[in-house]
Amino acid sequence: MTDKRNKAIGVFDSGLGGLTVVKEIIKLLPNENIIYLGDTARVPYGTRSTETIKRFSLENTQFLLQKNVKCVVIACNTSSAVATTFLKKKFKQIPIFEVISSACLEAVLMTKDRKIGVIGTRATIASHAHLKEIKKTNKKVGVFEGACPLFVNFIEEGEISGKLISSLVQKYLGKMKRNKIDVLILGCTHYPIICEILKKELPGIKLVNPAEGLAKNLKAYLTKNKLLRKSSRSGKKSYYVTDLNQRFIKVSEMFLGGKLKGNIRKVNPE
Amino acid sequence: MTDKRNKAIGVFDSGLGGLTVVKEIIKLLPNENIIYLGDTARVPYGTRSTETIKRFSLENTQFLLQKNVKCVVIACNTSSAVATTFLKKKFKQIPIFEVISSACLEAVLMTKDRKIGVIGTRATIASHAHLKEIKKTNKKVGVFEGACPLFVNFIEEGEISGKLISSLVQKYLGKMKRNKIDVLILGCTHYPIICEILKKELPGIKLVNPAEGLAKNLKAYLTKNKLLRKSSRSGKKSYYVTDLNQRFIKVSEMFLGGKLKGNIRKVNPE
Repeated sequence: MTDKRNKAIGVFDSGLGGLTVVKEIIKLLPNENIIYLGDTARVPYGTRSTETIKRFSLENTQFLLQKNVKCVVIACNTSSAVATTFLKKKFKQIPIFEVISSACLEAVLMTKDRKIGVIGTRATIASHAHLKEIKKTNKKVGVFEGACPLFVNFIEEGEISGKLISSLVQKYLGKMKRNKIDVLILGCTHYPIICEILKKELPGIKLVNPAEGLAKNLKAYLTKNKLLRKSSRSGKKSYYVTDLNQRFIKVSEMFLGGKLKGNIRKVNPE
Repeated sequence: MTDKRNKAIGVFDSGLGGLTVVKEIIKLLPNENIIYLGDTARVPYGTRSTETIKRFSLENTQFLLQKNVKCVVIACNTSSAVATTFLKKKFKQIPIFEVISSACLEAVLMTKDRKIGVIGTRATIASHAHLKEIKKTNKKVGVFEGACPLFVNFIEEGEISGKLISSLVQKYLGKMKRNKIDVLILGCTHYPIICEILKKELPGIKLVNPAEGLAKNLKAYLTKNKLLRKSSRSGKKSYYVTDLNQRFIKVSEMFLGGKLKGNIRKVNPE
């Protein structure tokens, strides 16, 4: 039997955006084995119904459990917002981490003017997951939510600089800026890719990348529960995707912020 | 046994864009029953691999055959470009119509300067389906291809007028305009929605909506083969989708150009 500590961390995402989360996990836990599942055949989740997002998230989690992971990370903000409670009820035997709660806590600790902005996909924003989480921590903080559906498409198409994306940022975030938020939660795995433009268009507003808090939480959990991998060598990375198109490497490396090292395999979790 | 003439026309699409095709079929064949399948749980197809597009198209066709249709219309340009040959080999018992060939023939007949532009999704353009079809008809016609991946997202988000979409049109079509095409094939079901902007930004260039030629072909085929429905009453319309989100009615009616009348059901063809 494998030593539980040496089992991999399982991460799933609707597509490749979750690699921004893998990037932060690798930074803090370089020796861990990671098994990533990107549901690239059915991405995006952010425009789908709650029911369908839950079904896809369930299938992804089952896939990772079959790979015998020691925990599951929901890298996708849409799945985290919509399916966390459902998955935690369904899979009580395994620790499940999501990208909403730590981001909200961090934002509450950061805001001085008690005004937090949250951006995400349509499904994430419609769930009000961040709003509820922030209000649980501090009722007095104002929360300004905004769905930014086209950001994902722009980023996946490499439209990450220039006039077009700047106009879109102003369109989506102009109102939050006028409402004088001082902290903005990047509630989608794609958004860290455009953080430079966001900083430029929203001067003085602090950005929260949920992947950072998630990685810290994960490290704390594994340390506390003596589940850190017993090895001083770099962990093995395995990437599973449900579709593999010609742009895979290019898009993956944009999200990962470097070379994609590890096995890449196409699978069908449906 | 049902009279073959009274069976429905089966139409499938990656999502709701195919309703622009249904719109043209209804115009020419108002008395026909139509069964539409929109694979809204897995839309878009245009960014997926050939293999996955074929698999999804196969599942959609099987679904329509189970509904006992008299013919199958591939409304999706991406599926038409990538999966037609595959589907025709697989399902020899049923006539299958696609949206590439009639559009190409029409464009060849229309061009005076022998310069045709083709726009579509990444997968459609990468297949060179239009290019091959045009060259089969007339080798001397120049074909200028351009993938316009963000058009679909803009249209689905209702970003169909104003500065942002105009900038995108110039970005995607500036080069074709400089190359002096005189005919442009709208190689994606979504594009008829932005035909006014295209006309404004590309003055003097004639637009081909493949749905119109498809509807004519379909009518000619049904007439010739004595398969027209024997009724003077409006045909029954049944809409099946693999996901049903809150924006369904709004987006559907944009594509259909009017009220969505008929049964709407959620199904799972996977």
